[in-house]
Amino acid sequence: MSNPPANYDDIRNALTAAPQVDAAAKQAAEARNAQLTKPPGALGRLEDLAIWYGAWRGTDRPALNTPQVLVFAGNHGVTAQGVSAFPAEVTVQMVANFEAGGAAINQLCKLAGAQMTVHSLSLDLPTADFTQGPAMSEAEFLAAFGEGWSAVDAKADLLVTGEMGIGNTTAAAAVAHALFGGEAADWTGRGTGVDDAGLALKARVVAQGLAANPQASTDPLEALRCLGGRELAAMAGAIAHARVLQIPVILDGFICSVSAAVLEVAVEGALDHAVAGHVSAEAAHAAVLQRLDKTPLLSLGMRLGEGSGAALAIQILKGAIACHSGMSTFAEAGVSEG
Amino acid sequence: MSNPPANYDDIRNALTAAPQVDAAAKQAAEARNAQLTKPPGALGRLEDLAIWYGAWRGTDRPALNTPQVLVFAGNHGVTAQGVSAFPAEVTVQMVANFEAGGAAINQLCKLAGAQMTVHSLSLDLPTADFTQGPAMSEAEFLAAFGEGWSAVDAKADLLVTGEMGIGNTTAAAAVAHALFGGEAADWTGRGTGVDDAGLALKARVVAQGLAANPQASTDPLEALRCLGGRELAAMAGAIAHARVLQIPVILDGFICSVSAAVLEVAVEGALDHAVAGHVSAEAAHAAVLQRLDKTPLLSLGMRLGEGSGAALAIQILKGAIACHSGMSTFAEAGVSEG
Repeated sequence: MSNPPANYDDIRNALTAAPQVDAAAKQAAEARNAQLTKPPGALGRLEDLAIWYGAWRGTDRPALNTPQVLVFAGNHGVTAQGVSAFPAEVTVQMVANFEAGGAAINQLCKLAGAQMTVHSLSLDLPTADFTQGPAMSEAEFLAAFGEGWSAVDAKADLLVTGEMGIGNTTAAAAVAHALFGGEAADWTGRGTGVDDAGLALKARVVAQGLAANPQASTDPLEALRCLGGRELAAMAGAIAHARVLQIPVILDGFICSVSAAVLEVAVEGALDHAVAGHVSAEAAHAAVLQRLDKTPLLSLGMRLGEGSGAALAIQILKGAIACHSGMSTFAEAGVSEG
Repeated sequence: MSNPPANYDDIRNALTAAPQVDAAAKQAAEARNAQLTKPPGALGRLEDLAIWYGAWRGTDRPALNTPQVLVFAGNHGVTAQGVSAFPAEVTVQMVANFEAGGAAINQLCKLAGAQMTVHSLSLDLPTADFTQGPAMSEAEFLAAFGEGWSAVDAKADLLVTGEMGIGNTTAAAAVAHALFGGEAADWTGRGTGVDDAGLALKARVVAQGLAANPQASTDPLEALRCLGGRELAAMAGAIAHARVLQIPVILDGFICSVSAAVLEVAVEGALDHAVAGHVSAEAAHAAVLQRLDKTPLLSLGMRLGEGSGAALAIQILKGAIACHSGMSTFAEAGVSEG
């Protein structure tokens, strides 16, 4: 376990120096896949998934036993602009719900056999309203990034990061706009359920955020600091550390994917260890995944956050690994290869 | 447990007389869903799935504990026309593989905690080549349908049917063509992996099958008897019996969906207890699901059969039920409703 990065250069250097996928294990997993008792390619994406996972775990016959789910919660000064359908106190109420085991993510983690922890990030100290200037100081940003980084269990064999934070689809939309350009409205959506007027307001607020933080448009880490929030920074930190530790990641929805995208824009290849768990109903999520060249495993109209879509997708990865590592080969089963 | 149908009228009458979904349970499940700690609709299709499942199980807070997977294997006289990339002896070899636990479906059933049984249907007596006349006599058809019917465990709380049968994508294409019209080529695909010439051959063989069995185009049960196969008839029998027993069904791929479609064309509403587990890479599967007005839960490019796509989709249904039945309500958790 390495120390969390102390500055932007540390983050970039850690990602640049991170180990690549194990090419020999990948080749061995591909060779095993070709011998399993099924027509070539008949398991579709499950085959790619199992090979990808084995390659990152350094084995041709992987197992998935200790998935970790980290849920980060933060509060957002930009809620002062009226961008959410829910009041800001819901963040802390939902954290209590996570801790009591009553939320969707709790049920999905139980089903997946995942270890889940909730990390409240200074909920009594919301980020600054980014329409007025940077959401976080550099020290605040690095502290949140480091909290995510340090939360990763080096013994985990899979990582999912989720979030809770009233107002955070607006923050994520602003970060995405800074990373990928276009118009503010390209990146805003209905979040937990705002109406048409609310949607138009979100786009205006995002545009104001970029205008108030010009440095966000030229540096992805600055975009995350100036327009994001503590839970977004923490997710990026956790996903970065997983890359260093060769722990595969399943990305969750819009907010998680935007946080992760910061890493990829900063250092190309930073997300090679990650797959997209699902595409959410939040309008801009599909566009973010397209920029990341990642095809979602699930498309079920989910838009809850918390890591819920990715936690559900653990079941798909488990199915892929179960087939890959558990099936007999043609030779073992005495089946003709056609 | 009722006796298997003795003739076509028995089949139609059983489906017509089958109990409908429990409207009170559906309403109660919808009411519960509206109170769970998430924005309305934020779990997307998981919400619909859990409500559908609860409604069929007659409870607002369902559990899924005893899923059953039935795999039926049959051999096809039409393989004499050279329609498959694999030799016919692979059917019996794969049955041995299922019994030894080495196939994909074994791994996916283990993951889902599903009880799985394999049913070999007169493998040493292939159906007749349907380009020359009916694949099965009425007695053979009813025996196979009845074997599927009787294989359903009345105590199961979910049913998946899968199949193995070299040549059966051609049989399923012929049945689909008889049920839904169009051109033969609309319903043929590459199956386990035929080339372009093989694909053209399959379309010709399907067209010959319809020409040789004109009654198939006017009666869905005749389509299944004359153009299908024993494993297709058995799947239809099992799915019909599940309807009578109010056991929800997850449909698998092209061959399973065509077998099920026979019931829906025979008696509208016969598949109200069924959802589509996935859409396979077999070209015509999406078209069959569209005719059935069912949106697949998964789209992962799978095309293996065996029940594999539906068995994987059990994990999605489990996730839906876990959230629906396990989450706290706003009142229980003390969370503001926005």
